[in-house]
Amino acid sequence: MTNPAPLVEIWRGPLAESLHSGHVVVCDHTGQIVFALGNPDQTILPRSSVKMIQALPLMESGAADAFGLQPSQLALACASHQGAPMHTDPVAAWLSELGLTDDDMRCGAEVPRDRDTKHAMIRAEGSPCQAHNNCSGKHCGFLTLNKHIGGGTEYVDPTHPVQIAARDAFESVTDMDSPGFGIDGCSAPNFATTMYGLARAMAYFAAADVDSSDKRESGAARLRQAMIAYPHLVAGDGRACTELMAAAKGQAAIKTGAEGVFTAILPDQKLGVAVKVTDGATRASECTIAAVLVRLGILDANDPAVIKRMTPRVRNWRGMDTGMIRPAAGLIDA
Amino acid sequence: MTNPAPLVEIWRGPLAESLHSGHVVVCDHTGQIVFALGNPDQTILPRSSVKMIQALPLMESGAADAFGLQPSQLALACASHQGAPMHTDPVAAWLSELGLTDDDMRCGAEVPRDRDTKHAMIRAEGSPCQAHNNCSGKHCGFLTLNKHIGGGTEYVDPTHPVQIAARDAFESVTDMDSPGFGIDGCSAPNFATTMYGLARAMAYFAAADVDSSDKRESGAARLRQAMIAYPHLVAGDGRACTELMAAAKGQAAIKTGAEGVFTAILPDQKLGVAVKVTDGATRASECTIAAVLVRLGILDANDPAVIKRMTPRVRNWRGMDTGMIRPAAGLIDA
Repeated sequence: MTNPAPLVEIWRGPLAESLHSGHVVVCDHTGQIVFALGNPDQTILPRSSVKMIQALPLMESGAADAFGLQPSQLALACASHQGAPMHTDPVAAWLSELGLTDDDMRCGAEVPRDRDTKHAMIRAEGSPCQAHNNCSGKHCGFLTLNKHIGGGTEYVDPTHPVQIAARDAFESVTDMDSPGFGIDGCSAPNFATTMYGLARAMAYFAAADVDSSDKRESGAARLRQAMIAYPHLVAGDGRACTELMAAAKGQAAIKTGAEGVFTAILPDQKLGVAVKVTDGATRASECTIAAVLVRLGILDANDPAVIKRMTPRVRNWRGMDTGMIRPAAGLIDA
Repeated sequence: MTNPAPLVEIWRGPLAESLHSGHVVVCDHTGQIVFALGNPDQTILPRSSVKMIQALPLMESGAADAFGLQPSQLALACASHQGAPMHTDPVAAWLSELGLTDDDMRCGAEVPRDRDTKHAMIRAEGSPCQAHNNCSGKHCGFLTLNKHIGGGTEYVDPTHPVQIAARDAFESVTDMDSPGFGIDGCSAPNFATTMYGLARAMAYFAAADVDSSDKRESGAARLRQAMIAYPHLVAGDGRACTELMAAAKGQAAIKTGAEGVFTAILPDQKLGVAVKVTDGATRASECTIAAVLVRLGILDANDPAVIKRMTPRVRNWRGMDTGMIRPAAGLIDA
């Protein structure tokens, strides 16, 4: 994590209380960097910000069409959802269409992040299933590909054909060899790349032509379109990806990843965006992606959904205004 | 937040995924810095890490003795508790002893952090009261002092005698003027100081003689002893302050503060410790304070309570070991 730049300041009254640093790269579809802060050569784990890349083999293999997947399912395959019924119901239906059950997934059971769903579960003294895992849509995508190619049950193993295909797609769109991988929260391998590689991959998605005869390219375009068409399926009520995509009015597919990562695909501008906050804080990655998209003319700084992430006031238990979050100067200045 | 040092690394498989930087100062009772990383002159808001300082006027005014406060109550006055019955029951009793009610507090209602208490509240469709606020013990201390001096009801106002007394005590034990304040989560002013000032204040507490004729000094010693005697009241089950104090076997009073702050008072060594993680992350401040106290010989690196914060393995939803948290080299090397 070398040479990060200041990205986000946390103020309390007259004092700067905390500071988040990190890296930002905006890249066009020719591979040219059009804006950067920090270190474009920094290697990172992109985590869930690359679910659309992990879904590429589902498209280019023909599995998505063989199983008649709808755009809403493609959006779920790219999602980090919060386990509300709007997410878990279609996941359960998808598994059923595949002739599979919750037990066939390998993402693990996760307490849903959707507040109402979680509270209902607590009241019922229930426990989550794997469909509640924020990655369950991605795993349905993996399972669909796996069914299509007739692979073994342990589809998250790094040596399994599903993950070898994911790595191949990842290295193709990042245009570099991956230096290694970590095991993600959902047990799938998460391949490393540089900030530049990640932004380049997003620019590939931004410029991808849905009518291309190249199955990878048309698949990338269809995934991009699905994310933009179904922002609520990609995350959920109140979430940054969902609300910022809605605010972008079709101009951006936006995806968060754990440990302070964000990506954005800007099809009109044919630009890709990669954000990594060095310390992994979500409050900072959300502020940063909002500020970058304002800078690029995709979002309006006065939109309530943007203010909520980019320049929110901080309030205490009595509702007193105690401070604010704001982008550092280098992020918003010319 | 200038010139921070690397403090804590987050690893996932073979890759360093995230990094936390910040400042550490260890100071002896003569004001000499015995160990530092980052910038001792960095101004910070110490947040809840200085509740023992905010309780000093309660002691030196004679209010604590006039109201017959017990050591357990002094520990609560220094606490950021998690709103379990072991915390809220004595807070309610204390308010009753003062002839006051929950409505007389000004800390605001906070959902209890204690899991069982929170879940019971969700099941009962209940809502928290101010006694559940993690600062309610501190506010009982403020209210006791206020009753003693006959102050007005708005005891959290920065111009109220209770807060003027808190500022006077703060500037005395940090041995410097405070450059300003922010309003804390509990609505009380939180005075700024430098990392050095904060460590010096903790060294004052470490060296304070309980038999001193100086009321401030004997009060500081009694607060220190109360924290060490009642670690569960200072935080709660499973919490870092509580478990690390238990692991320190009487050799340390340890206190967390929001936004990545920790303090420690080491009476045997007459040392004070101040930690601030620049980005405000608790996982990093907990790792750092544990590592510093291991370095100082107060904690054992192999103690499960220490491993839990200093070198924990990270596991995913299926229980797979995916990585670890560990101190940066500069924090543990000689």
